[in-house]
Amino acid sequence: MFKHVDYLQFQARPEKPDAFFAAKLQELIGGQYGEMTVMMQYLWQGWSCRVPGKYKDMIMDIATEEIGHVEMLTTMLARLLEAGPNETTEKAAAANPVLAAVLGGQNPQHAIVAGGGPMPTNSQGVPWNGGYIVASGNLLADFRSNVAAEAQSRLQTSRIYNMTDDTGVKDMLQFNLARDTYHQQQWLLGIEQLLDDGFIDAPIENSNMAEEKAEQRRTFYSFDPESTAGEGRWANGHSLLGEELVYVPDAQPLTDDKPIGPAPDPKLFVTYAGDMGKGTPGTAGGAYASGMKNVAKKVKDALDG
Amino acid sequence: MFKHVDYLQFQARPEKPDAFFAAKLQELIGGQYGEMTVMMQYLWQGWSCRVPGKYKDMIMDIATEEIGHVEMLTTMLARLLEAGPNETTEKAAAANPVLAAVLGGQNPQHAIVAGGGPMPTNSQGVPWNGGYIVASGNLLADFRSNVAAEAQSRLQTSRIYNMTDDTGVKDMLQFNLARDTYHQQQWLLGIEQLLDDGFIDAPIENSNMAEEKAEQRRTFYSFDPESTAGEGRWANGHSLLGEELVYVPDAQPLTDDKPIGPAPDPKLFVTYAGDMGKGTPGTAGGAYASGMKNVAKKVKDALDG
Amino acid sequence: MFKHVDYLQFQARPEKPDAFFAAKLQELIGGQYGEMTVMMQYLWQGWSCRVPGKYKDMIMDIATEEIGHVEMLTTMLARLLEAGPNETTEKAAAANPVLAAVLGGQNPQHAIVAGGGPMPTNSQGVPWNGGYIVASGNLLADFRSNVAAEAQSRLQTSRIYNMTDDTGVKDMLQFNLARDTYHQQQWLLGIEQLLDDGFIDAPIENSNMAEEKAEQRRTFYSFDPESTAGEGRWANGHSLLGEELVYVPDAQPLTDDKPIGPAPDPKLFVTYAGDMGKGTPGTAGGAYASGMKNVAKKVKDALDG
Amino acid sequence: MFKHVDYLQFQARPEKPDAFFAAKLQELIGGQYGEMTVMMQYLWQGWSCRVPGKYKDMIMDIATEEIGHVEMLTTMLARLLEAGPNETTEKAAAANPVLAAVLGGQNPQHAIVAGGGPMPTNSQGVPWNGGYIVASGNLLADFRSNVAAEAQSRLQTSRIYNMTDDTGVKDMLQFNLARDTYHQQQWLLGIEQLLDDGFIDAPIENSNMAEEKAEQRRTFYSFDPESTAGEGRWANGHSLLGEELVYVPDAQPLTDDKPIGPAPDPKLFVTYAGDMGKGTPGTAGGAYASGMKNVAKKVKDALDG
Amino acid sequence: MFKHVDYLQFQARPEKPDAFFAAKLQELIGGQYGEMTVMMQYLWQGWSCRVPGKYKDMIMDIATEEIGHVEMLTTMLARLLEAGPNETTEKAAAANPVLAAVLGGQNPQHAIVAGGGPMPTNSQGVPWNGGYIVASGNLLADFRSNVAAEAQSRLQTSRIYNMTDDTGVKDMLQFNLARDTYHQQQWLLGIEQLLDDGFIDAPIENSNMAEEKAEQRRTFYSFDPESTAGEGRWANGHSLLGEELVYVPDAQPLTDDKPIGPAPDPKLFVTYAGDMGKGTPGTAGGAYASGMKNVAKKVKDALDG
Amino acid sequence: MFKHVDYLQFQARPEKPDAFFAAKLQELIGGQYGEMTVMMQYLWQGWSCRVPGKYKDMIMDIATEEIGHVEMLTTMLARLLEAGPNETTEKAAAANPVLAAVLGGQNPQHAIVAGGGPMPTNSQGVPWNGGYIVASGNLLADFRSNVAAEAQSRLQTSRIYNMTDDTGVKDMLQFNLARDTYHQQQWLLGIEQLLDDGFIDAPIENSNMAEEKAEQRRTFYSFDPESTAGEGRWANGHSLLGEELVYVPDAQPLTDDKPIGPAPDPKLFVTYAGDMGKGTPGTAGGAYASGMKNVAKKVKDALDG
Repeated sequence: MFKHVDYLQFQARPEKPDAFFAAKLQELIGGQYGEMTVMMQYLWQGWSCRVPGKYKDMIMDIATEEIGHVEMLTTMLARLLEAGPNETTEKAAAANPVLAAVLGGQNPQHAIVAGGGPMPTNSQGVPWNGGYIVASGNLLADFRSNVAAEAQSRLQTSRIYNMTDDTGVKDMLQFNLARDTYHQQQWLLGIEQLLDDGFIDAPIENSNMAEEKAEQRRTFYSFDPESTAGEGRWANGHSLLGEELVYVPDAQPLTDDKPIGPAPDPKLFVTYAGDMGKGTPGTAGGAYASGMKNVAKKVKDALDG
Repeated sequence: MFKHVDYLQFQARPEKPDAFFAAKLQELIGGQYGEMTVMMQYLWQGWSCRVPGKYKDMIMDIATEEIGHVEMLTTMLARLLEAGPNETTEKAAAANPVLAAVLGGQNPQHAIVAGGGPMPTNSQGVPWNGGYIVASGNLLADFRSNVAAEAQSRLQTSRIYNMTDDTGVKDMLQFNLARDTYHQQQWLLGIEQLLDDGFIDAPIENSNMAEEKAEQRRTFYSFDPESTAGEGRWANGHSLLGEELVYVPDAQPLTDDKPIGPAPDPKLFVTYAGDMGKGTPGTAGGAYASGMKNVAKKVKDALDG
Repeated sequence: MFKHVDYLQFQARPEKPDAFFAAKLQELIGGQYGEMTVMMQYLWQGWSCRVPGKYKDMIMDIATEEIGHVEMLTTMLARLLEAGPNETTEKAAAANPVLAAVLGGQNPQHAIVAGGGPMPTNSQGVPWNGGYIVASGNLLADFRSNVAAEAQSRLQTSRIYNMTDDTGVKDMLQFNLARDTYHQQQWLLGIEQLLDDGFIDAPIENSNMAEEKAEQRRTFYSFDPESTAGEGRWANGHSLLGEELVYVPDAQPLTDDKPIGPAPDPKLFVTYAGDMGKGTPGTAGGAYASGMKNVAKKVKDALDG
Repeated sequence: MFKHVDYLQFQARPEKPDAFFAAKLQELIGGQYGEMTVMMQYLWQGWSCRVPGKYKDMIMDIATEEIGHVEMLTTMLARLLEAGPNETTEKAAAANPVLAAVLGGQNPQHAIVAGGGPMPTNSQGVPWNGGYIVASGNLLADFRSNVAAEAQSRLQTSRIYNMTDDTGVKDMLQFNLARDTYHQQQWLLGIEQLLDDGFIDAPIENSNMAEEKAEQRRTFYSFDPESTAGEGRWANGHSLLGEELVYVPDAQPLTDDKPIGPAPDPKLFVTYAGDMGKGTPGTAGGAYASGMKNVAKKVKDALDG
Repeated sequence: MFKHVDYLQFQARPEKPDAFFAAKLQELIGGQYGEMTVMMQYLWQGWSCRVPGKYKDMIMDIATEEIGHVEMLTTMLARLLEAGPNETTEKAAAANPVLAAVLGGQNPQHAIVAGGGPMPTNSQGVPWNGGYIVASGNLLADFRSNVAAEAQSRLQTSRIYNMTDDTGVKDMLQFNLARDTYHQQQWLLGIEQLLDDGFIDAPIENSNMAEEKAEQRRTFYSFDPESTAGEGRWANGHSLLGEELVYVPDAQPLTDDKPIGPAPDPKLFVTYAGDMGKGTPGTAGGAYASGMKNVAKKVKDALDG
Repeated sequence: MFKHVDYLQFQARPEKPDAFFAAKLQELIGGQYGEMTVMMQYLWQGWSCRVPGKYKDMIMDIATEEIGHVEMLTTMLARLLEAGPNETTEKAAAANPVLAAVLGGQNPQHAIVAGGGPMPTNSQGVPWNGGYIVASGNLLADFRSNVAAEAQSRLQTSRIYNMTDDTGVKDMLQFNLARDTYHQQQWLLGIEQLLDDGFIDAPIENSNMAEEKAEQRRTFYSFDPESTAGEGRWANGHSLLGEELVYVPDAQPLTDDKPIGPAPDPKLFVTYAGDMGKGTPGTAGGAYASGMKNVAKKVKDALDG
């Protein structure tokens, strides 16, 4: 169960409105790595976590914090949209070339749909969707996803940080940058903890490990004759599992199996060349196949003119 | 530019058809972490890579391999669908309770849309989409995403591996499991290489680091009074940046700023309570606001009966 | 800012697992009117609400409750999936025809993607998306949307309630049904309050009312000569605005304006019949248009054989 | 079956082209509450309506009208795009700062994809989708949805109305505003009719009402200690069902049930702490679990350096 | 403007209900090539058609017919769902193995969301979307798309036709098959008419033809050394434009241009190797770049242990 | 299996950067008919092709070429984005009205998400998705789809070609235009080959032809009394199957069947008027239906005041 406190975790006070920057800021709300994603991803992982105690509590704590981050960003967005240029275009732009850029670059849904507020979409207007969430129940795999999400999220925040001079906006983003720095580490330290607690014995997902092909577990295949990929750490020395790494230049197929399907069910009218020969009844959806030979003949006559 | 060799990288020969398992296998083709995702993600990262030489070559090599993995899986799927149960349901199910399950669980689009072949969708029929791709141009952030993608992909492969007894299917999945084991390491070793080559100075994304709030970079905030999250590694000792970690139980707002937007543009008809008082013209889209007081009266009379 | 209490608002204890029912229950989590929708819709409306005090507090209170409802449903789902049938199909179904139905009807992503937990999708596997959210800033319009959302949500809960005999599941759904009953009224009483407080002067959205066409505001147009729609309340008596209702049978166009666009920009190669005559340069993207008369002739010759 | 008359229901004659405004007008065609939504929603409800006579006829009549509204808007859009600025940007913008705004704000798909015509998308280019449609077969629930749809649609029309000075555009939108005013009432009067005809006995969805928890049907729970929500009509007096309303400040969990799933199927490699103790085979997908102890040791050695 | 006649164009009377078949039939309603697609595609093309007279009238006529086809299919679907198996699963399946298949294969949204009616989705539950519509304003390109749509639509109808023994369903599908046969021809004959009327001078889209590279207009490139593609008509004889066809086996790049981007803007923190050398400030988002050398050192120390 | 050669198929060298044009060029990468679509569509068709030899080889060859086309376009895009205007808006626009347009019209994700590179989206930011792919296994139907795809793709390329003066961009697009000209013909010639090889006996999809209604196969129905569609080739002379074409003006329903569903399952709470009379238990989800007559009375009293 959740509770709400009617104050922001950290202040969201822009110096002045900026509808154009607001359009960009949407990426941090409803983008692939916006705050909606980490909020929902951590809630989902917390609810799916089967390890009560410090792991589950940690995930639920950060999930709860992230709901508040969406709150901070939506508040910031509404304030950036104050007195947005919702007038008729021509008059406004004629008077002010700066406004012309703003007009062109602002998000029309901010006015039309949201009445001067945030949208649950990215910076191009695409709605956030549940396909962004990662929650497998396997803490190693999910912590890896979380490190990645915080890294991408921080990078985007950092890029957007450089797109404004507003000290109020920058102040809040400095808080967000710091949280992403901490959270990246939180998940990496979480992997350390999983190793310490004996939940995993390697920092990579390795279920059913005894079943996998041993050779392909340590081999880099190159598919370009001029590739220099063999010079990298990934092709030299030992793997994280202690096995010697192998580099295979100009890799060849490991089988003579060709990518072709079996003869199809005639009822599906798939074109094929089976042992009944080409053009056999049922193979290509022809009139002939249906026993309509006279119609087929008419067709041929018609085509022949 | 690309070339094609008309053999599979590794064989895809099931012992016998299994339309129900084929429906599940779609997750490994068109799911969030199916082969289409890594194929497109690595192609995109390779094309966007600004470091010619071993990094770009390595990314393009694995991208090229992954196109071949989609080829292996689509071939396997077509073979699993051979002689699929496309008959009328009642007859088939009456004769065979096993078939009843298969009929219920198979993917109808395999027959109707693809004619006994694979679909570019996940195991629930949702089309693959470009929103799954991660390619930021920042190699650290992207390698983190790639480790995560390979971990999730391997976990799903491993779960599906346990859902079949078909030795031919298992043989191919043992190859796929091994590649995912290798590829997870490839990206982790790639981060080692980035550190060695001086492209990064920390294993986390830390652009604009001098700007961020120093305190929030090392602090865990808890939002549940009974949380035990303070017991974990993420709240004790030093961070990866060498700073002492701080744990804040039952965190409080850091500001008295409340989440409320400014007075809206009257032309947007947003409800608000401004200094003009409640119900002021324009605030709530009322007839009164539009100067139609007589209509407003009629409305009231009508409502009052 | 939000806080979390590690107890459910109401218990979620099924008598026994039921993977098939779990697949259906997804509709109440990630469907168009699942709990994710009302949770996000009310959070969004709360953050966008410009009336501090009882309105904003009320919206935030219900939003906070709804986060806890998603928590209840995801917990219930994980428990319904305990010991889910993740074995190979054939063995399982052969032994048990009931299981055959379950196998066919269960959601494969529950095992493959979520490891025996809930998905952020509807009962057909479609990811929840932000396009379901309604938050305009206009409280009347949004309260109308909320009444509708609670009505649809309750109806779906009621239908699903009739699809199980599990007394534990039914117990929780009895709580959910009651909340939807209350919440429908909450929003209707909210409209009463808006009228009482003078934020609106009619129970319908009527901004810019002085501008609209007076005649079309009170007229029902019928487009089927045999329609009996004229017998309804909507075509007889007075409107909610106190105006006499008008019924127009077999309605005719009110204009002689035809649905045709202007002559297109030749650079867009749109087919059209302008005053330059048919086939004029640029009109249909032809070789002739491009000055390639000799090629055009070759084409004609080739086609003529 | 349908018929077409080649005249618009109401004229769609702009004074002059305006590609920028056309981009915004897309919201009224393919947005969440654009004309495509009401057209498809009413068609769907009409086809699903099980009450022949005035109800079904009324729904089909308005559905048929709405097809014509999409026709009006697409015609208007094509006319607004006449002579759209499809030239190279630099020349155009250098000559004319107003044009700079238009260029930035226009929809590139209007020229590239549609050849100077409308798109089946919203103002941000997101394609219209069937997830916007509501059609449950329950007339009360659906009429509630329809009131909401008309209110949101009218509000958006009203906001867009204020974004243009074109008297021709305004003339058509005055017609649309009036229709939305009428249609909101039509659905509210439809609910009156349902009550009069005895199809429902309350203006809220209340199926399975005898089953729901009686207490939670009349209770407002607050989750913020400082909330003032208790001052509203929704927490005072009697409900629409005649029951006394209850206000619960600072609500507490009604159960000691915690949000945690059961022990997972080992074949799914979900991390958990079961009675077998932490790190037990199968719990976290480890090499140890797979019997590969020697590999596990190698891993540890490799990590330990 | 449109009108409605309350009779189906052709009868939709199944012999008996079949919820499983109904789930498959959804593909013909809301699939990529279902009736919603052709209905909306032709409406859109008709509204965008700039050639008044027989072309525009023909497109509007078929569009109007297709609205009626969706009506036929939704009616059929509701009838197939009569008395659908909405009971609890276990009881039902235990009694009847045929029902087990139906239960597993039916669409849960038919009951939960639509109350025993059709959904605006495909056979896997994915909502229909506007991205399926093709309407470019260029009649040749659009007629080509329409031939393709009718061919795919007919093929799917034909496959589904073979999945039922119900003579009532088959009767209606025989009508639909015939319409698709006619409509394929209608669009091909439309291309004949465009040629006759001089709107096009070739049966392929060839705008800006004088600008394109002449050599690449007639050349087949092969990218597999063992390809036998050179044996086909597409690589031998003359093209439809009268030019000699060329076959290039084992094609090589036509340029020495490599797929690499320029040096990125430092503010975007993209990893690159520019002339400032590797690891230069700004290139990889490092702490060093931000002037935080002391922090960078701490990081290194922490990592070195 | 695939291989990569680290050179472009054709050069992609713009004269100078142009972020605004780059935003438009996205349509050719990730739009409905962008290069991602043909790449994936042909790969999919190739993998699903059941005719080994020249057909399968031809499809795989063009699929392999198209991967290289995406590579060319993504490279071009990265170069067009060099030194993109990622600064703060106001300063930039004030200095330069041309830049104002560029700023408004550029794609914010190019900087924020991709770091100055391409996105897997269309020109409006909508992610590419697998729903664009057509691959039925029936070569005739698929070749028809491919002709259409190449025609639409070429048309869009041609429109974009006219939107730039950059000779480097134009040079590459001249190559792309030519390939689309060739590829349109390749698929049309492929249909010729299918006829020659006896895989089909008519140039239209005609499976199950003996089953379809003979009359409706050759009839044009008009649904507008003033339609002139009867003047076209599609309503006069003989069909491609050699049958006489029929034109039916002002078409009437062919049946007295009305579009109404059967009485619904009472457990679904669908409103209906069955033989049990209106308002009968279960029909409309009322309290009365649930046996709660006393509650129903309270409701009535409350409503009556």
